[in-house]
Amino acid sequence: LEKFFLYHEIENKFMDSRLFLRPRSIAVIGASRSPQKLGHVVLAALLRSFKGQIWPVNPNADQILGLRCWPSVKELPKTPDLAIIIIPASGVAEVLSQCVAKGIKAVIILSAGFAEIGNVSGERELLKIANKKLRILGPNCIGIYAPYSGVDTIFNPPYRQGRPRPGHIGFVSQSGALGAALMDWAAAEGIGFAAFVSIGNRIDVDEVDVLSWFASDKNVRAIALYLEGAKRGRELFTMLKAITRKKPVIALKAGRTIPGAAAVASHTAALAGEPAIYSGMFAQTGTIEARSIEQLFDFAKIFSQPLPNGDRIAIITNGGGFGVLCADAIIESGLRMAKLEKSTLDSIKPHVPEYVILGNPIDLTGDANAQRYAHALSAVLKDPNVDALLVTTLMQITTLEPEIVDVLTEAQGKKPIVAVCTGGHWSAAHKNLLESRGIPVYPTPERAAAALASLIKYAKFKKLKSGFFS
Amino acid sequence: LEKFFLYHEIENKFMDSRLFLRPRSIAVIGASRSPQKLGHVVLAALLRSFKGQIWPVNPNADQILGLRCWPSVKELPKTPDLAIIIIPASGVAEVLSQCVAKGIKAVIILSAGFAEIGNVSGERELLKIANKKLRILGPNCIGIYAPYSGVDTIFNPPYRQGRPRPGHIGFVSQSGALGAALMDWAAAEGIGFAAFVSIGNRIDVDEVDVLSWFASDKNVRAIALYLEGAKRGRELFTMLKAITRKKPVIALKAGRTIPGAAAVASHTAALAGEPAIYSGMFAQTGTIEARSIEQLFDFAKIFSQPLPNGDRIAIITNGGGFGVLCADAIIESGLRMAKLEKSTLDSIKPHVPEYVILGNPIDLTGDANAQRYAHALSAVLKDPNVDALLVTTLMQITTLEPEIVDVLTEAQGKKPIVAVCTGGHWSAAHKNLLESRGIPVYPTPERAAAALASLIKYAKFKKLKSGFFS
Repeated sequence: LEKFFLYHEIENKFMDSRLFLRPRSIAVIGASRSPQKLGHVVLAALLRSFKGQIWPVNPNADQILGLRCWPSVKELPKTPDLAIIIIPASGVAEVLSQCVAKGIKAVIILSAGFAEIGNVSGERELLKIANKKLRILGPNCIGIYAPYSGVDTIFNPPYRQGRPRPGHIGFVSQSGALGAALMDWAAAEGIGFAAFVSIGNRIDVDEVDVLSWFASDKNVRAIALYLEGAKRGRELFTMLKAITRKKPVIALKAGRTIPGAAAVASHTAALAGEPAIYSGMFAQTGTIEARSIEQLFDFAKIFSQPLPNGDRIAIITNGGGFGVLCADAIIESGLRMAKLEKSTLDSIKPHVPEYVILGNPIDLTGDANAQRYAHALSAVLKDPNVDALLVTTLMQITTLEPEIVDVLTEAQGKKPIVAVCTGGHWSAAHKNLLESRGIPVYPTPERAAAALASLIKYAKFKKLKSGFFS
Repeated sequence: LEKFFLYHEIENKFMDSRLFLRPRSIAVIGASRSPQKLGHVVLAALLRSFKGQIWPVNPNADQILGLRCWPSVKELPKTPDLAIIIIPASGVAEVLSQCVAKGIKAVIILSAGFAEIGNVSGERELLKIANKKLRILGPNCIGIYAPYSGVDTIFNPPYRQGRPRPGHIGFVSQSGALGAALMDWAAAEGIGFAAFVSIGNRIDVDEVDVLSWFASDKNVRAIALYLEGAKRGRELFTMLKAITRKKPVIALKAGRTIPGAAAVASHTAALAGEPAIYSGMFAQTGTIEARSIEQLFDFAKIFSQPLPNGDRIAIITNGGGFGVLCADAIIESGLRMAKLEKSTLDSIKPHVPEYVILGNPIDLTGDANAQRYAHALSAVLKDPNVDALLVTTLMQITTLEPEIVDVLTEAQGKKPIVAVCTGGHWSAAHKNLLESRGIPVYPTPERAAAALASLIKYAKFKKLKSGFFS
């Protein structure tokens, strides 16, 4: 029965998901000619990235940014798949009525000025107008960024906030500012997103809905969830349980402490709830719990790699110190060091200088070039005792050519490869290229090992559950 | 007696410290005309930064990079304060004899090819030649980077490895590659160094010596130590005990696990020792133990701020979600949330909109500008219940002007201020500026809170010890 409910639920959301994440036409209600206004920034963002039809709505303009402008929703040439409302709170109800009348099924209300400042009745009015004839995302949110379809309602200008490249992470955030900061960070780090959804005051669409959208979205391979308090605890539990059998969910629950929970109450008027209940829910549903915003994405991005068959890790490095730190980090993360076959090490020997240290770690030493890595990678990945590979590439040393990026890219296959690359701008250039080729890169051995542990934990969970569900 | 020994020891090292960290003249033995050779890269680096006299030594060149070249050490016009040897291992002994004969007192041997590849006898020979008439740093090290004097023997080209700006951190590393990677990272992050010393095979100068140099170096306000295994355990203990009463030491001990310790043995031929012994030593000497390379510098850089009188933290933010995460992180790091005086909050009220949340956290909300921060900072820093301040500045939102950098800079005084700034390139520009003005900035609330906890831990330790020692 539960199984039926889940798939039924997911089916129901499929249409919503299409309208919000992959609309064919968008109306921007409150589009503005003034570059300082959010209604301008959003329109400009859509013009850059969205390939479908865009209809600005503003009674006081004939044309904005070269697009014909429509005086009201009523007069739009067709019913748009999605409407974005970005006008003062006092006018939202009127405009929403027009959306209902026009037959619009999906609305994002970016406007603030509702429950977050005590205006609860304003929200009740919106729900009454919607009367389940349309779905509302918001109000008081930053909306959606979906790079595959080009939807971008994020009203922070691009010079201040980067947009992540298309990738595999679906991110749902209860906090808009936090979502914006993390998208900005991910963009600079070369981390890819399939979609970002800010649920804001979530009077209608909430985290459970967005999880169901992501469940059926093929671009989403891992889900990151920032939550201050669940709106529907039971449904969240059921949804997490269903999704984690298909794809991993990494959750960061904020408000774990008494002062944190108090801050939640004044921030989103949500109940933070007992931290132990959330930890229990995450454990029982196979959701990976992150303890920091760094872990949320350190863990989410590793799922670009295949799931490993076990926890035996091989380390390859060009810095002895990093080899030591990687070994410590592997053990301290609860994983095991692979015991390489003698034949594996013997097959590397003829291709490397005598002073290379062949063991685990394999220390290719400071003068290693990309070719030396290629020999080691190829041999180690074939070793039946190796489940996953942790590769350190210190780019400071002249002998390591940029071709190391190609060597690692081509080595990808059935066993996960994770890289550690510590450094500044030169390293970042290579790191971001590796990320775009699907190899997760970490600035430290400790973060790489923790991410590997989350990958392996999920692989074990999935193996355990696959008997029941697949 | 112990006290006497310590100061005596530190005095003895003072001359070495001057010659290595602040020489007036440097001979580069093995300077090369070929841009690919390390002897060229080092000479070029010195030419860029060192203001004293530089004498290239090479029998096969008349001039390199515009400098007159000397055929041998013997023929140098004067005795240099410091000699840098960067020739193949086989020739080092001969050149070292010439250094002794010339009366040189400080030598850095960058050349590899000694104990790290089993050539222990080669090292014994060098020590015999030196015969305590000169001090040797190395061999198999990357030497010294000292931005205040301009000493730079780091042979990684500047496009691959950045050099940190002048700052307050003294960093001693048993691993050269790790040191290079972390300097590169620090440079990109805007973190300042007073000096970096790579001890390599440490046949003479070791971590204890460098700690004593840093103890008496006024530019060094905090010491970062990367260690795989102590050379002189007892002396290290005594030195740490003495230094931590003057300035903080943050230590990262690698080789804490069995595979890690095995990797240490093949990397630096050192004994990793029992991890519990090191943890015990760090605890007993007031040394702050870092558990990752990120913590090593997260902790070291916070000592640009004054020591706080207690552990009551106030939080100011322009993002509610970050306020929640900061509160969680403060509590989970073992610190306390400050209870602000009603008068403090009342004094902010007239200067901020009604919807600003006045409590702890103070949530200035998403449309906060620099002026709003200025009012809040000034009031909170005066509150007698506040020992330290954690300020989040999300730079994605248009209303927060770059002037926030000046506001934070000017707020600095007797109470420590730490910032959280999460984001991409725009954020990084502001973050690096703040770092250069002495405000430590962290990418996440969790790392900021952990660093604050290390600052407070050291402040408590110093208060406890000051009665005995000052």
